[in-house]
Amino acid sequence: MENIKKKIAYLGPEGTFCEEAIISYFGDVSNTEMIPFTTIPEVIKSVNRGEVEQGLVPIENSIEGSVNITQDILTFESEAKIIGEIIIPIKHYLIGKKGTKIKNIRKIISHPHATAQCRIFLTNKFSNCEIIAANSTAEAVKKLIHLENDTAAIGAKIAAQLYNLEILESDIEDNKENKTRFVMIGNYISPKTGNDKTSIVCFLKKDKPGSLYNILKEFADRNINLKRLESRPAKKDLGDYVFMIDMEGHIHDKNIYEALESLRNKVYLVKILGSYPV
Amino acid sequence: MENIKKKIAYLGPEGTFCEEAIISYFGDVSNTEMIPFTTIPEVIKSVNRGEVEQGLVPIENSIEGSVNITQDILTFESEAKIIGEIIIPIKHYLIGKKGTKIKNIRKIISHPHATAQCRIFLTNKFSNCEIIAANSTAEAVKKLIHLENDTAAIGAKIAAQLYNLEILESDIEDNKENKTRFVMIGNYISPKTGNDKTSIVCFLKKDKPGSLYNILKEFADRNINLKRLESRPAKKDLGDYVFMIDMEGHIHDKNIYEALESLRNKVYLVKILGSYPV
Repeated sequence: MENIKKKIAYLGPEGTFCEEAIISYFGDVSNTEMIPFTTIPEVIKSVNRGEVEQGLVPIENSIEGSVNITQDILTFESEAKIIGEIIIPIKHYLIGKKGTKIKNIRKIISHPHATAQCRIFLTNKFSNCEIIAANSTAEAVKKLIHLENDTAAIGAKIAAQLYNLEILESDIEDNKENKTRFVMIGNYISPKTGNDKTSIVCFLKKDKPGSLYNILKEFADRNINLKRLESRPAKKDLGDYVFMIDMEGHIHDKNIYEALESLRNKVYLVKILGSYPV
Repeated sequence: MENIKKKIAYLGPEGTFCEEAIISYFGDVSNTEMIPFTTIPEVIKSVNRGEVEQGLVPIENSIEGSVNITQDILTFESEAKIIGEIIIPIKHYLIGKKGTKIKNIRKIISHPHATAQCRIFLTNKFSNCEIIAANSTAEAVKKLIHLENDTAAIGAKIAAQLYNLEILESDIEDNKENKTRFVMIGNYISPKTGNDKTSIVCFLKKDKPGSLYNILKEFADRNINLKRLESRPAKKDLGDYVFMIDMEGHIHDKNIYEALESLRNKVYLVKILGSYPV
């Protein structure tokens, strides 16, 4: 019998942190077909269209581009739900062709974000090197194949492995606390596990004094712990706001269900982005 | 008598949106010496050290890099205050050497963020072009000087003017609503104008249920309108949170002063990032 692999979309190209996150998420990916997309909207929309079963995108503190786009697409342009999350440390590696000597390096290629995040390392050890930009850390690493041994790249470990290159220095990022939170997107509400998180968006017609306060009262009254709160301008009209709220618990928990029901009477719209295991 | 120019630090290089924002902010910059720095921390720290009188940095929705860093440096590593703000639309231009013909373009250079923000334009008109990365839009535009007429860059109008190049297409960004908010940093609290905004950060030891609700009660009780609210992890310990709050009014207004005094009894620390004209 043919083995049908589960299709998972992700923000490509191959050899980036998003691919690393999928591998960490599933542990075993032998039954998974991983399909890279060029942009975050394309990943989410491939889930919307049912072309893939799930999709993984960065949502917070990513180093490879803005993640407001993830929140905005999930809020305004998709009915897909967050069904899981994974947080991975962002570790940068200095990568070269086999046999590259640190002292011979004259050029370093990477995505401008990665270069910026390794500024102290570069200033201390490679202050005379030319810094060349690439469209992704994976593109930077791939370019090494056709270059001389005077060039290194900054990228993910997985990219060094993918192109059979050598890691010259590990963990070269300035801030060792750098992490990215990725969310797994699917077409269903994830079942309750007992240790869950719920993400919602509240749409408000006017930012009246106290309106946010009245929203939060619903949660405080029911002893629901909020994990994250962010106000963002709504898309069409800069005067109206949305509030993105992460809370402890599952929407099938009685207190959360009741808080959301009550909230619907106070605001323009409540949208459930998902309930998922912590 | 010698004319002493006011020194203003900004996030460089020359020919980017940050320089455009300074010009919009002051209107007349003839008495201003504009000093570009490579990173946001360096801009803020040059104000801290008193080397410049003011500094301009992006704080929200910038296209040229992360702005969490601005909030973090102002929160955790600086006593400089926000003394003003300016919001400018982010408009991208396709730029070439004089005489460049659209039909001859084979390569397009830009910062990966700018390329990403013009994706629809590029897909429709330049789907066969090679997209080459640069470390900033200004670097992309500058590179054109030494290249053939088969290459164009995506960048700011100010960069085209700086290097005496031609604008081939205007407003090529996919999202015409794209704006960046910049803040001006100085070593004082800006005087009250009657139409002001105040930015604060509250440090919380534990994210107890209702703690955010209790903070917002102080503002709701005094009819203070909140403009923006964001929770972020505190720097050292991932369990503790900070809340960044923007409100209408000036800290010298009686109701805001009293709300903040009352708040100090409820939270670990309240830090005033500044009061400034809207």
